Amino acid sequence: MIRISIDAMGGDHGPEVVLPSLLRVAERRPDARFVIFGREEAVRPVLDRLPRLREVSDFVHCDVAVRMDDKPSQALRQGRWKSSMWKAIEAVKTGDADACISAGNTGALMAMSKFCLRTMADIERPAIAAIWPTIRGESIVLDVGATIGADAQQLVDFAILGAAMANALFDIERPTVGLLNVGVEEIKGQEEVKEAGRMLREAALETIDYRGFVEGDDIGKGTVDVVVTEGFSGNIALKAAEGTARQIAEYLRAAMSRTLMARIGYLFARGAFQRLREKMDVRKINGGVFLGLKGIVIKSHGAADEEGFAAAVELGYEMIRSGVFDKTRATLDLYHARRPMLAVGAVSDA
Amino acid sequence: MIRISIDAMGGDHGPEVVLPSLLRVAERRPDARFVIFGREEAVRPVLDRLPRLREVSDFVHCDVAVRMDDKPSQALRQGRWKSSMWKAIEAVKTGDADACISAGNTGALMAMSKFCLRTMADIERPAIAAIWPTIRGESIVLDVGATIGADAQQLVDFAILGAAMANALFDIERPTVGLLNVGVEEIKGQEEVKEAGRMLREAALETIDYRGFVEGDDIGKGTVDVVVTEGFSGNIALKAAEGTARQIAEYLRAAMSRTLMARIGYLFARGAFQRLREKMDVRKINGGVFLGLKGIVIKSHGAADEEGFAAAVELGYEMIRSGVFDKTRATLDLYHARRPMLAVGAVSDA
Repeated sequence: MIRISIDAMGGDHGPEVVLPSLLRVAERRPDARFVIFGREEAVRPVLDRLPRLREVSDFVHCDVAVRMDDKPSQALRQGRWKSSMWKAIEAVKTGDADACISAGNTGALMAMSKFCLRTMADIERPAIAAIWPTIRGESIVLDVGATIGADAQQLVDFAILGAAMANALFDIERPTVGLLNVGVEEIKGQEEVKEAGRMLREAALETIDYRGFVEGDDIGKGTVDVVVTEGFSGNIALKAAEGTARQIAEYLRAAMSRTLMARIGYLFARGAFQRLREKMDVRKINGGVFLGLKGIVIKSHGAADEEGFAAAVELGYEMIRSGVFDKTRATLDLYHARRPMLAVGAVSDA
Repeated sequence: MIRISIDAMGGDHGPEVVLPSLLRVAERRPDARFVIFGREEAVRPVLDRLPRLREVSDFVHCDVAVRMDDKPSQALRQGRWKSSMWKAIEAVKTGDADACISAGNTGALMAMSKFCLRTMADIERPAIAAIWPTIRGESIVLDVGATIGADAQQLVDFAILGAAMANALFDIERPTVGLLNVGVEEIKGQEEVKEAGRMLREAALETIDYRGFVEGDDIGKGTVDVVVTEGFSGNIALKAAEGTARQIAEYLRAAMSRTLMARIGYLFARGAFQRLREKMDVRKINGGVFLGLKGIVIKSHGAADEEGFAAAVELGYEMIRSGVFDKTRATLDLYHARRPMLAVGAVSDA
């Protein structure tokens, strides 16, 4: 049985989308159980319409709902201890749930998650990991927005966190890892990135196949399983790629409806376009995973529809089923147990 | 008459691609003249095959050619005063040419350009600007790789440089400008980005319509005419977008050749696909413009084919024809003339 806590009040649509999406998950994953947090008057009517969901769910009323435009500090002040978002996170801390999903505002969710769950030992700052579709399959990219200007040690931590996630989710024994960098020779990279590269090479962890620097276009190629960067450039890379995908979809739509011949061609190739749409469907890869906390929290896109929110919930399900958490802990212990030795090595080299 | 100096030895293909591409430009722009720099034995045979190009070109032999894998410091040491790259840049300085185009290695080209041409007064560091196709048309994005970790003043300078380029190239009187940032509320942006935003707002320049922060997906939407960022995230955004475009083209190709129906559909819609290919054709937007130097230098992609290199040359042509340089100078003077006043304003506010 896998238990997932749900903030039903998050996102642009609230319970009207969140609850039907849970039903989809319940139908596909018979051992999933939900603890749903939200306002009684908003959640109960929807839940009453979905008896099959009610069978696998507990509902907890919460007075407060964090708004999408609340500042994180404001959300913490008004929503701590009592909001649906806080309660859903807290369920992970108390052990009532194995993972928490919210489509609420990212800043508030991260602030509350840090405050409630705290970071794992040896981890200074959490990261948000995204699953990125590539030509070869899927890669993990982190951080896509939690920490701006990570230092070398934090980048190394992200590499460990991301590799553990790839190991568990994609079932790759020793995931390949690259540090995101720029290609111009003279100015190759920020100091932190270079230093993180040296540290990863020296650490020579059994759980990470460190492959050096990668560039922005390597992400989509799937050059490595895990792409590590700090949150500013990671967020910009993710959004630039999303923007480009939408832009091309727009071009394609315009081109295919412009002439009669194109429209006829479209009819014949409808199946192929359907497959392409599925490939490009961002709903299926919905979910930013907060890594480095003492518990799993997943942020769904605020605008997610039923299938989108269901994808985020199923991502949480898979994270638990595959034991990401224990695998992360094991690699972190390995790395930090070896660090004093590495430091000695560095001194004797000098 | 517009005179363009050409480093014929740069790029993956050298004179074999560079010279035929110049012929294309010559046919489309009858008032273009070229000064071609390169090794006699490599350039002369190709030039002899192209009499129409010879009519509008001067050729200057240079002993040294900068290699694509030379480090910038190495290129400067070995190629200063004498390489085809240096000579092509120097032609702009001496006034023998109005702009310089090279497909040689970016680091070396930037190092030599800075050394030979120097930065404009009031500009500390140059930027590389890219023309980015958007749903609305085209935008300018800078810096895409010259300066890592620009400070607030440098970001403001980039805004001025980019706006002047948009004004001249796109013929927009008061281009809209946005600072690239991340969307998560609590951690919204690096300090430098916030500070640059305040400075742009205070300066209230007549030549810039400053619109605040934009995110990665706003670039492709064409939300603003000019997107300003520092070189690390700009380079990563550009490459992530290029990678995504290639990835989708790959998906599309696979989808359209997989079934008989899809192949038939493709035949009908061939014209539409052709238009889409043209829209997505990166060759047509080839050329990174070095801004902030006392002269125009354009870097063509090293792997550019004839049409690609021709696009970079024509971009240089348009930059000169539209008077980017004088317009940049005018805005810079306006801004810096007003700066003491702004500083006084800031003090009296405190």
